[in-house]
Amino acid sequence: MSLMFKVLKTFGMARRGILETVHGKVETPGFMNVATCAAIKGGLSSLDLRNINCQVMLCNTYHLHLRPGDEIIKKLGGLHKFTRWTGPILTDSGGFQVFSLAKLRKISEEGVEFYSHVDGKKIFLTPEKSIQIQSNLASTVAMAFDECVKNPSPKSYAEKSAKRTVRWLKRCKLEIERLNKDDSTINKKQLLFGINQGSTFCDLRIENMKKIAQLCLDGYAIGGLAVGERAEVMYYVIENVEPYIPKDKIRYLMGVGTPVNILESILRGIDLFDCVMPSRNARHAKLFTNGGTLNILNAKNSILDESIDESCNCHTCKNFSKAYLHHLFKCKEVLALRLAVIHNLYFYNNFFKEIRASLDNNRFLEFYRQKKNILCQKV
Amino acid sequence: MSLMFKVLKTFGMARRGILETVHGKVETPGFMNVATCAAIKGGLSSLDLRNINCQVMLCNTYHLHLRPGDEIIKKLGGLHKFTRWTGPILTDSGGFQVFSLAKLRKISEEGVEFYSHVDGKKIFLTPEKSIQIQSNLASTVAMAFDECVKNPSPKSYAEKSAKRTVRWLKRCKLEIERLNKDDSTINKKQLLFGINQGSTFCDLRIENMKKIAQLCLDGYAIGGLAVGERAEVMYYVIENVEPYIPKDKIRYLMGVGTPVNILESILRGIDLFDCVMPSRNARHAKLFTNGGTLNILNAKNSILDESIDESCNCHTCKNFSKAYLHHLFKCKEVLALRLAVIHNLYFYNNFFKEIRASLDNNRFLEFYRQKKNILCQKV
Repeated sequence: MSLMFKVLKTFGMARRGILETVHGKVETPGFMNVATCAAIKGGLSSLDLRNINCQVMLCNTYHLHLRPGDEIIKKLGGLHKFTRWTGPILTDSGGFQVFSLAKLRKISEEGVEFYSHVDGKKIFLTPEKSIQIQSNLASTVAMAFDECVKNPSPKSYAEKSAKRTVRWLKRCKLEIERLNKDDSTINKKQLLFGINQGSTFCDLRIENMKKIAQLCLDGYAIGGLAVGERAEVMYYVIENVEPYIPKDKIRYLMGVGTPVNILESILRGIDLFDCVMPSRNARHAKLFTNGGTLNILNAKNSILDESIDESCNCHTCKNFSKAYLHHLFKCKEVLALRLAVIHNLYFYNNFFKEIRASLDNNRFLEFYRQKKNILCQKV
Repeated sequence: MSLMFKVLKTFGMARRGILETVHGKVETPGFMNVATCAAIKGGLSSLDLRNINCQVMLCNTYHLHLRPGDEIIKKLGGLHKFTRWTGPILTDSGGFQVFSLAKLRKISEEGVEFYSHVDGKKIFLTPEKSIQIQSNLASTVAMAFDECVKNPSPKSYAEKSAKRTVRWLKRCKLEIERLNKDDSTINKKQLLFGINQGSTFCDLRIENMKKIAQLCLDGYAIGGLAVGERAEVMYYVIENVEPYIPKDKIRYLMGVGTPVNILESILRGIDLFDCVMPSRNARHAKLFTNGGTLNILNAKNSILDESIDESCNCHTCKNFSKAYLHHLFKCKEVLALRLAVIHNLYFYNNFFKEIRASLDNNRFLEFYRQKKNILCQKV
């Protein structure tokens, strides 16, 4: 299994790598495009994903379990057939959503009892159940079921929770091994990534990382960051836990982040990212450009016959003007969302392409210094 | 100017024709795809229009005058440059919207005073002003400014209104002739279609049609139908007024209608149509198929791994299943709207293609009889 991921090159802590999967390869550092309910919000289909250079689609286990139901998706041949996306798909475990969306949860050693945010129905999610759902969805990578503790959190609770998450991880591993041998399983080569927890306490994080490293998983995620703490704290935690993540495995920082967060994290040894920010910001008219961020709703854009970013090759920039996009947002036309999301996701995927090229050409530090200040500016 | 439209073939009253414009030709019978605010609702861009075999895009003068403003669109090079649609564009005159959307209107010989439905601002629209706006938008075809009377309407009012609409039409004609000679005009070959009014009173309709026929316009529309009366009344009015429409000019039935309305109207000599129904129905999960209409939200669709219409070649049917579309509608994903609108508009444009082929092959009556019953069914 360890042959799945290859580090091609390093630059300090930063790594240039490649993950081989049954659904194709993922060049790292890489960004996963979030399709919560098996569709990118804003009207992009899986066919559009190819045109924005998406490498991995990320779908949400919790949402798909509720609607349409993972049994239905299994009957329909799995997420790939359902969405028509043929590349790698990562499914989260539902853990994060249980703790952020669901009502009245009750945690026990066995799992979590909670009420659906859609119809109020009682649901009991366990590590085994989460893996069963993800196996039904037939994603390329399944994530272990964890508890995501909000920051700040009392150390005693963070410790108790992190230890339970390790026990849950062992159950996830047994379950995926069982299911990957089951005749009815669609993707018998489903990978499992473990998740490091421990809130902002470096000693807990390290202790947790050491334990999960022994389980020899296909990849390691750092979860429970970017959930309330300052960015500097996040960087500090990554720096501290990084030496304990197996060098030969892919490292995924969950739910992060801004272009600067991403550069700083790659500099500290992270390979894989996902974030709703580019698509969510786009839906709120906030667009990324190589010169900084802009709000297309600003009045000055109403008469500008130029693309959002003249240096961008996305469908939106190649075809439409700021004035047209401004108009579509003003009229609340759905097309506004689509064109904006296409641009922001293309921007993110292209940003990662540039990062990889800078690592390939030994110019990563130069790239980092050059981009770090520009990308925070408002234009 | 009369060479612009050619009748290639007739079949009873039904006609197979072609309209040549500066922005390309329009094969008739033809359907215009409604892009009210310079975008098809549901997230389709002008580039998508090509893939759904759209011949003509229809934009709304009233909406675009309010937002972004026709002066801005003129500065940006006209609607074609603004939207990136290169084919023919028809703009309505704003008349219909003034009478259906605006508040507190006051009609005089000079024009109509009303309050914007967007920001409550007072606006005074005259025949000249409507043509000036449409000239700024630089559409291929401008529509005359008319009053659209709701049905039923007192005959005395319908008569008074229809007569005023003729006087307004003469002013429209003078204004477009003036503007088409103006140096600053973007499209100096903008066409003008007159609009027949007279509510459901055939004598008024005929009198009105005779008068406007003398003005030798580029095309003739029948307005003020499908606004409250039964379909049979509409067909009866068309039958009565048709003999008085110049044979060598294109005939446009405004705002109509269902596939059956369209077949019946073509049978009575209509060449051109527009309707929001295919896109609006799509946004409400109601889809047209060659076997009848279906509501994709019906539970039975949740597990069907088949296209909406197996005989359809649209992007949606070629790629996605009923189950996926059902799921997207259930989750209120914007992608649901896009895929449904693509299908319904493709269906309509393809339906017209089939009608034209049936006329070309002398099978129109057969086609009419075959489709008439099927298309009303619910599947």
